[in-house]
Amino acid sequence: MLEIQRLSVAEAAILLEGARLKATELAIPMCTAVTDESGHLITFERMDGGKISSISIAIDKAFTGAVARKGTHVYNQLCVPGKGTFGIHVTNGGHFSIIGGGLPVTVNGAIVGGVGVSSGTADEDLIVAEAAVAWFRERTGFAE
Amino acid sequence: MLEIQRLSVAEAAILLEGARLKATELAIPMCTAVTDESGHLITFERMDGGKISSISIAIDKAFTGAVARKGTHVYNQLCVPGKGTFGIHVTNGGHFSIIGGGLPVTVNGAIVGGVGVSSGTADEDLIVAEAAVAWFRERTGFAE
Amino acid sequence: MLEIQRLSVAEAAILLEGARLKATELAIPMCTAVTDESGHLITFERMDGGKISSISIAIDKAFTGAVARKGTHVYNQLCVPGKGTFGIHVTNGGHFSIIGGGLPVTVNGAIVGGVGVSSGTADEDLIVAEAAVAWFRERTGFAE
Amino acid sequence: MLEIQRLSVAEAAILLEGARLKATELAIPMCTAVTDESGHLITFERMDGGKISSISIAIDKAFTGAVARKGTHVYNQLCVPGKGTFGIHVTNGGHFSIIGGGLPVTVNGAIVGGVGVSSGTADEDLIVAEAAVAWFRERTGFAE
Repeated sequence: MLEIQRLSVAEAAILLEGARLKATELAIPMCTAVTDESGHLITFERMDGGKISSISIAIDKAFTGAVARKGTHVYNQLCVPGKGTFGIHVTNGGHFSIIGGGLPVTVNGAIVGGVGVSSGTADEDLIVAEAAVAWFRERTGFAE
Repeated sequence: MLEIQRLSVAEAAILLEGARLKATELAIPMCTAVTDESGHLITFERMDGGKISSISIAIDKAFTGAVARKGTHVYNQLCVPGKGTFGIHVTNGGHFSIIGGGLPVTVNGAIVGGVGVSSGTADEDLIVAEAAVAWFRERTGFAE
Repeated sequence: MLEIQRLSVAEAAILLEGARLKATELAIPMCTAVTDESGHLITFERMDGGKISSISIAIDKAFTGAVARKGTHVYNQLCVPGKGTFGIHVTNGGHFSIIGGGLPVTVNGAIVGGVGVSSGTADEDLIVAEAAVAWFRERTGFAE
Repeated sequence: MLEIQRLSVAEAAILLEGARLKATELAIPMCTAVTDESGHLITFERMDGGKISSISIAIDKAFTGAVARKGTHVYNQLCVPGKGTFGIHVTNGGHFSIIGGGLPVTVNGAIVGGVGVSSGTADEDLIVAEAAVAWFRERTGFAE
């Protein structure tokens, strides 16, 4: 039997809070999704003004961060025509995101969930996702 | 009437075993899929630690190897913007894989199935797929 | 942090073996899928003669057993026009199965995975799925 | 290694011809599809006046006849709310047809392909599909 650690909804809410704080600071209303370690949605929030097209993108980013185990911005740089990973953006029924702003959430080296942010540029989305994870560490005290 | 040769489930299990042995040697837990010559799944295994996003990718790689009759890494190099094959990665309902790690399995010049491996880099996946086919040849004695 | 128990690939293989033994006894070549507790595929096998249309049905049954937490035959009787659950068979992108032969796999009261069997009648599929779970209990000693 | 028998394109054309002859006799322009034993399309024809919505239905009927190994009209009667097989009509990505007019094509007891007819009523479609198979037997001499 495998023993898996998984974000609780209370912990997922902390990630959402961290994203909201940073998005507010940047004045960019964001869509933020948090999934468990298997890529299934735990919590989601579209701030007033967040893009409708970003709802599914944020969810796909969190999914990808959790199950593919790398930031979506990393896959963005691997998924370039002529490189071996090109094509991964159309897998998993189109749910594999290669746009920055999706991150795995780790605790003591194990992935326990994923966070995905969308509505800004890919760089802005990534900044907010990183802030969400930093807030999660600060509030919970969990090590990477 | 056409006469077709097709992997049995026992032969598919040998391919799976070959992939498992190589993946264990490389210490990369893999998803491995084996399809018949028509691209339909015969057997699949996600090793402990294999990526969830690699489940469908491995299946798609095996499908593509069997039915498009080339290694998926070959299509990766053909499917580049400006080349004539660009766009093939979004065909077949998104199931045409152009990421290395999918191979046709041939016996006496005829394709009898496909094998697909995913969870490492495209190069690692291809190494494991090749090892699966080599193990299949060694254990069955079938010629290419 | 939630603590989750999940089938290992070795334990999933025991479920597959149990299905294979019963299917062989009944002389019905089956498709059998085993998923983890989140519904993601761990292992799959189509016996020689198993139906091609049953590949995805077996996977969907295992998914449903694991994540909807009831046997798919239970949903079959709930999903009847005029009853409140009617319509659930078209949810989850069409992957929610209401055909008997999908079961949750529990250990000490917690769902650790799902098993799905297809190629016979719904009743035959359920018999084989139950045999798979019984074999799993016998070989592992895990309580329900 | 499994030895499979599969319709050649010449034999598939005979099935199409049989359907065309009967459809002409009935004065119902039909869509007719012929697949191989794995459910993959070999040949298709929409007669002048055949319904556009019947293109995919005919293909799905032929697929189902071949891979689920029963006439689609048989599944129609099994797939009734409260019966164990209810729900099968939404499986296989919606490609499992339960509307009469799809039949397996057998030779010496083995399924070698499928034929699907659509544009009339389910009963008319089945009559034409049966005529296609009868024509195939008459012209080829193959036993059931």
